[in-house]
Amino acid sequence: MKIEILCVGNELLSGKTLNTNAHYISASLLKKGYETNYISTVSDDQKELLIGIKTAIKRSDVLIITGGLGPTLDDNTKKIVCDFLKIDLKYRDDIAKDIEKRFGQIASIEEQATVPKSGYIFQNEVGTAPGFAFIHASKAIILLPGVPKELEDMFEKHAMIFIQKHFPIEEKVYQEIINITLLEELKVDAILRACQLPKNVILGIYPSHGIVQITITTKEKDRSDAVKTINFVKNQIEKELEDYIFIAKDGKIETAIHNILDKRDETIAFAESCTGGELSSRITKIPGSSKYFLGSFITYSNKLKKDILKVSDKTLKEKGAVSIQTVKEMIKGVFDITDATYAIAISGIAGPTGGSQEKPVGTICLAIAKRSEDIDAGILHLPFTRSLIIKAATNIAFGALFRRIAHNLEYFEK
Amino acid sequence: MKIEILCVGNELLSGKTLNTNAHYISASLLKKGYETNYISTVSDDQKELLIGIKTAIKRSDVLIITGGLGPTLDDNTKKIVCDFLKIDLKYRDDIAKDIEKRFGQIASIEEQATVPKSGYIFQNEVGTAPGFAFIHASKAIILLPGVPKELEDMFEKHAMIFIQKHFPIEEKVYQEIINITLLEELKVDAILRACQLPKNVILGIYPSHGIVQITITTKEKDRSDAVKTINFVKNQIEKELEDYIFIAKDGKIETAIHNILDKRDETIAFAESCTGGELSSRITKIPGSSKYFLGSFITYSNKLKKDILKVSDKTLKEKGAVSIQTVKEMIKGVFDITDATYAIAISGIAGPTGGSQEKPVGTICLAIAKRSEDIDAGILHLPFTRSLIIKAATNIAFGALFRRIAHNLEYFEK
Repeated sequence: MKIEILCVGNELLSGKTLNTNAHYISASLLKKGYETNYISTVSDDQKELLIGIKTAIKRSDVLIITGGLGPTLDDNTKKIVCDFLKIDLKYRDDIAKDIEKRFGQIASIEEQATVPKSGYIFQNEVGTAPGFAFIHASKAIILLPGVPKELEDMFEKHAMIFIQKHFPIEEKVYQEIINITLLEELKVDAILRACQLPKNVILGIYPSHGIVQITITTKEKDRSDAVKTINFVKNQIEKELEDYIFIAKDGKIETAIHNILDKRDETIAFAESCTGGELSSRITKIPGSSKYFLGSFITYSNKLKKDILKVSDKTLKEKGAVSIQTVKEMIKGVFDITDATYAIAISGIAGPTGGSQEKPVGTICLAIAKRSEDIDAGILHLPFTRSLIIKAATNIAFGALFRRIAHNLEYFEK
Repeated sequence: MKIEILCVGNELLSGKTLNTNAHYISASLLKKGYETNYISTVSDDQKELLIGIKTAIKRSDVLIITGGLGPTLDDNTKKIVCDFLKIDLKYRDDIAKDIEKRFGQIASIEEQATVPKSGYIFQNEVGTAPGFAFIHASKAIILLPGVPKELEDMFEKHAMIFIQKHFPIEEKVYQEIINITLLEELKVDAILRACQLPKNVILGIYPSHGIVQITITTKEKDRSDAVKTINFVKNQIEKELEDYIFIAKDGKIETAIHNILDKRDETIAFAESCTGGELSSRITKIPGSSKYFLGSFITYSNKLKKDILKVSDKTLKEKGAVSIQTVKEMIKGVFDITDATYAIAISGIAGPTGGSQEKPVGTICLAIAKRSEDIDAGILHLPFTRSLIIKAATNIAFGALFRRIAHNLEYFEK
């Protein structure tokens, strides 16, 4: 059985919009054991859309089309698919009333309530454009709106269930992800290469600036067989990588910190310079982080480092804002102002300017500490561009905090 | 002439990796006036890859394939394409020496230096896998590596030039983007609908939580004709939307703020609660923001609101942390601690919990002020989920700050 995602929209072909919908759908399919075989993108143009549909339905059994269901002139998907399937459209008063109830008397109601006479209709609980599904010559064509929120809601509540019901699969894909912090790709790769692998297992390795993800993938008819196979490999990896592993469903290191602090009576606060709020903005994206996150001092100017965090004039003059002494004093400042159990302080040169021979762009001073204990501080050298330096510095700072909180380990060698 | 981008990689079909390569290539093509007609994604599997190539070469004139050029087992692109084109592979000592010179004696040299006997070879100046291009039956097949940095370098230095040389186009696509802040999509849409449009112009409208982008696209043989056509439409839109328009190459509202403050002797500082550092992290991603950005106080806990920003106990108790009075006092705190010319304060309920009937999730109190002038403050109601509430609140806060700085306009009605 083959599944194809066909995305419709000029904005996806002009580099305007990143195709996050295909990404979401394929990830959701995989969670239920389904593989995506093809992803295609075509323009809003009626001819091109028809070419896309014909190409897809020839090679695939389930075709999921996203986009072009709205009320505007360039929204042609419903019409083109119904023409292709020779299904008439019909105005449905009940759908119009449902939209009106939720959105009032909007101009697009008539268009949105005009739907195929046959097939399945998926209610759009978030927006106005309903979705549709058809079984045609033992194949499925599913139409979903392009607005991500609407698509995600409808995919989860209707489309996925429709696929599972009409296209059950015997052999499902099972995938386990292992998240690694603070280890280089090459070191992780060497460990994977030494693993003893059953025939039906594929390993993947995906590094991303301070984080490495390992995927263990297998296909099995029986769930317990899959679990056994995956665990056989997982145990080997876990044995080698132990406390570099963090547990987070979304693969984010801050989520691993959250999962621990959520269950403890401890708190955190940060002092950020070069990361400019990236640490705090990432931690506060997690619902419930207010339980343990007190706040962050984005002391971008030296004056604020002095006025708020009480970094000494002497240190700033003699050692500079990017120095171990400065981040140590920033940590002290955080502990003085807040009641935090743990603190991170970070100051560096994110570039592109501001570097020197002694402290080139990518030089980051980082300190992690638990109140009343020694400060764990050192220097990172991150050979990236500005936004990736900020990303990697944040990942590493969180990685170090995670290992401190979870395993009481220090990051920098004494 | 039709162009297709074919992306190869299991990670793109499993929801693991976002397809940023196709996004980059299509945006780069458009800058040179070329449209992308199709984007497809297939797996590493040899059979599937061949299906992808055959489908693409049938409907397209220029096929750009990315990924699968590396030295590992799942990298099949070079072999499959050469089989398809009936071109033999051959070890090239000069290429091996070039790789060795840059990366030393690595294991993959022999594989990477084994290249097609005919066709064009693109040197990879960033990594080890060369790229290739072939002219086959008046069509082009171009092979590029999948690692974004390598792909981008090679596309710019070789592939784009190859396409322009071998597939020059008479009619080029010209696109102008207009960025709108603080206006709803429907209002922008109404203005676009009232525009007088030349036949060869297509308008696009792309809303994204507080920002709306308008694209004006046309196809012309002559550049000056295109400029004339686009300006005819642009002038109508600009006349209607005036001070809602912001100029930013990357479409980001903070970049518009940067562009102004970069030329002034004024500074900004923030006090953030619910946005948790999103404002500061976005502003500090811009190189050079340290010129005018002093810092931000992420006072997530009420205690920090009191201790740092001197929000009164009375206000927090009587009005609550999410109140106009609180954000006004936060603004005062920012002005007291820093020398900032402008300040933003924001406090709200990002959810999913913490809402009440009186102040449901999505209730955001926002204040913008210029030192010594009246504080512009009010309440936003953002009917989204947590991360989108944070995004929209940030976009609106920046929009209001932009209009204050650029046009001395207030956001909230008195």
